[in-house]
Amino acid sequence: MSKPNCGKRSRTQPFKQIGADMTAKIIDGKRFAEELRGRIAGHVERLKAEHGITPGLAVVIVGHDPASQVYVSSKARQTAEVGMNSYKYELPEDVSELDLLELIRRLNDDKAVHGILVQMPVPRHIDPNKVIEAIDPAKDVDCFTPANVGKVQIGLAGPVSCTPLGCLMLLRDELGSLEGKHAVIIGRSNLVGKPMMQLLLRDNCTVTVAHSRTRDLAAVVRQADIVVAAVGRPQMIKGDWIKPGAVVIDVGINRIDAPERGEGKTRLVGDVDTAAASEVAAAITPVPGGVGPMTIACLLANTITTASLINGLTPPSDLTA
Amino acid sequence: MSKPNCGKRSRTQPFKQIGADMTAKIIDGKRFAEELRGRIAGHVERLKAEHGITPGLAVVIVGHDPASQVYVSSKARQTAEVGMNSYKYELPEDVSELDLLELIRRLNDDKAVHGILVQMPVPRHIDPNKVIEAIDPAKDVDCFTPANVGKVQIGLAGPVSCTPLGCLMLLRDELGSLEGKHAVIIGRSNLVGKPMMQLLLRDNCTVTVAHSRTRDLAAVVRQADIVVAAVGRPQMIKGDWIKPGAVVIDVGINRIDAPERGEGKTRLVGDVDTAAASEVAAAITPVPGGVGPMTIACLLANTITTASLINGLTPPSDLTA
Repeated sequence: MSKPNCGKRSRTQPFKQIGADMTAKIIDGKRFAEELRGRIAGHVERLKAEHGITPGLAVVIVGHDPASQVYVSSKARQTAEVGMNSYKYELPEDVSELDLLELIRRLNDDKAVHGILVQMPVPRHIDPNKVIEAIDPAKDVDCFTPANVGKVQIGLAGPVSCTPLGCLMLLRDELGSLEGKHAVIIGRSNLVGKPMMQLLLRDNCTVTVAHSRTRDLAAVVRQADIVVAAVGRPQMIKGDWIKPGAVVIDVGINRIDAPERGEGKTRLVGDVDTAAASEVAAAITPVPGGVGPMTIACLLANTITTASLINGLTPPSDLTA
Repeated sequence: MSKPNCGKRSRTQPFKQIGADMTAKIIDGKRFAEELRGRIAGHVERLKAEHGITPGLAVVIVGHDPASQVYVSSKARQTAEVGMNSYKYELPEDVSELDLLELIRRLNDDKAVHGILVQMPVPRHIDPNKVIEAIDPAKDVDCFTPANVGKVQIGLAGPVSCTPLGCLMLLRDELGSLEGKHAVIIGRSNLVGKPMMQLLLRDNCTVTVAHSRTRDLAAVVRQADIVVAAVGRPQMIKGDWIKPGAVVIDVGINRIDAPERGEGKTRLVGDVDTAAASEVAAAITPVPGGVGPMTIACLLANTITTASLINGLTPPSDLTA
């Protein structure tokens, strides 16, 4: 692949016309997530038929945040669609911390429940750390508890943070082996950056974690065979930061003003300048429709993993890191 | 600093004569560890006087490996020297796994014990993972349990892996703030590389983890403001891989043949070619006398941390990450 003339292209010229060899493959996360859910449904079927186990996922939501409501409904629907039992608990905004912790304790003891997810954020009067610590690590399908975070680092079986697991699956699908690739992760959050680092290291990448204090971020990103952008800043990663032929995973979902669509309109963009990066990268995830759909699918995958481990079975290898 | 003529120097010419501005400062880990133990003794004094707490460290050794015996004796002696209670348990080589786990359970329940360390390796008939899992994370001063490993990643208070903590203390002492420095760790072990990555990230370094599958390791290391070598291969990191002015932490302790000292003689070397690297680096840890002495001192530091947390006190900030 010849080095494209990054950053000097006229912004009015649509990038798709520059040449097919310079246009990245768009990684279809929506389709991959569908396929993954199909595989998960197969594993559910097998657990039912061979072991009499119906995996069950309990989702707890506190209060009435509309975005959280939509997200929890999607989770519940997709859980049922793959043949698992879905249990939804809606608690009022002013529920006491004690009552929430008591519900979690009941779910810990409930043999029909193999995964427990408390939708974050919880209201301010509730300590999220106490909530996380209350969840039995064996049922912690979000991989929030310290014990499960540690297991990922050490390399022991257990649930893996959903979004990084989704990114890893897309990368493996795109590249096959990741061995020896230099992966640069931008962002070091507990939810994405740090668990992503563990998974890429486990897959034999050389891994660099960059963040807000990194000097000359552009030069660091330019080394990457694999870029994982997880900073939450719209289109911060520029096209000419991308090494020709790199694979770019854009975890960011940022809503920005879109006056071109009409007054007051908005649109979703990632952390990467997708159009410019697409001229250089070999493959890139779009926003929306890239990493986003993978997160819930990986939550279901984790529920198969925990249901298997709770019952003394080896978890399916195609659903985890 | 001018770029030295790396790798072309005659091996017969002692590096100290090349020019003072090209000779790295030798980081005196032995002296730093002494100073640290002095501070620890002060904290022990304070815990006794103000809170009636005498921190206690239990060390368990199985079998008669001479190196382990020496190491355990050093730990016990230094524990007593800083004013803590030292409890040493020596079990026969053929002790049953059940009996070892039972001892750990008793130590978990013993209010006089704030740290439990089982000297590794244990004999083959004992599963080290079962041993680690049996230790109450609140007393896990080696930071081996998944829960404590996870806490380091998330940023919660608790014990921190001893050798990486020692490296961090030396780096902070040498550089002050590590913010924005590019740290390259060579080696991704659970004991050193991975926890080191967490600590350097927490101190706002850009962190790269390289390992046996890394392509063009020399080029990766050449970017480093901070090099942490933890691969266990004698003198593998060459002098001309080091960026002028870098700080080099050599975790390796390798015994190699030293025929120049006489037939059958050996000597200890690190993972870095110390002589050549010293011409380029700003500062470097020697082997022996660099990182080595820090490990036991940090074990004692962790015992102060766990003794504080067990008693609901805030651990001293100068003894942890």
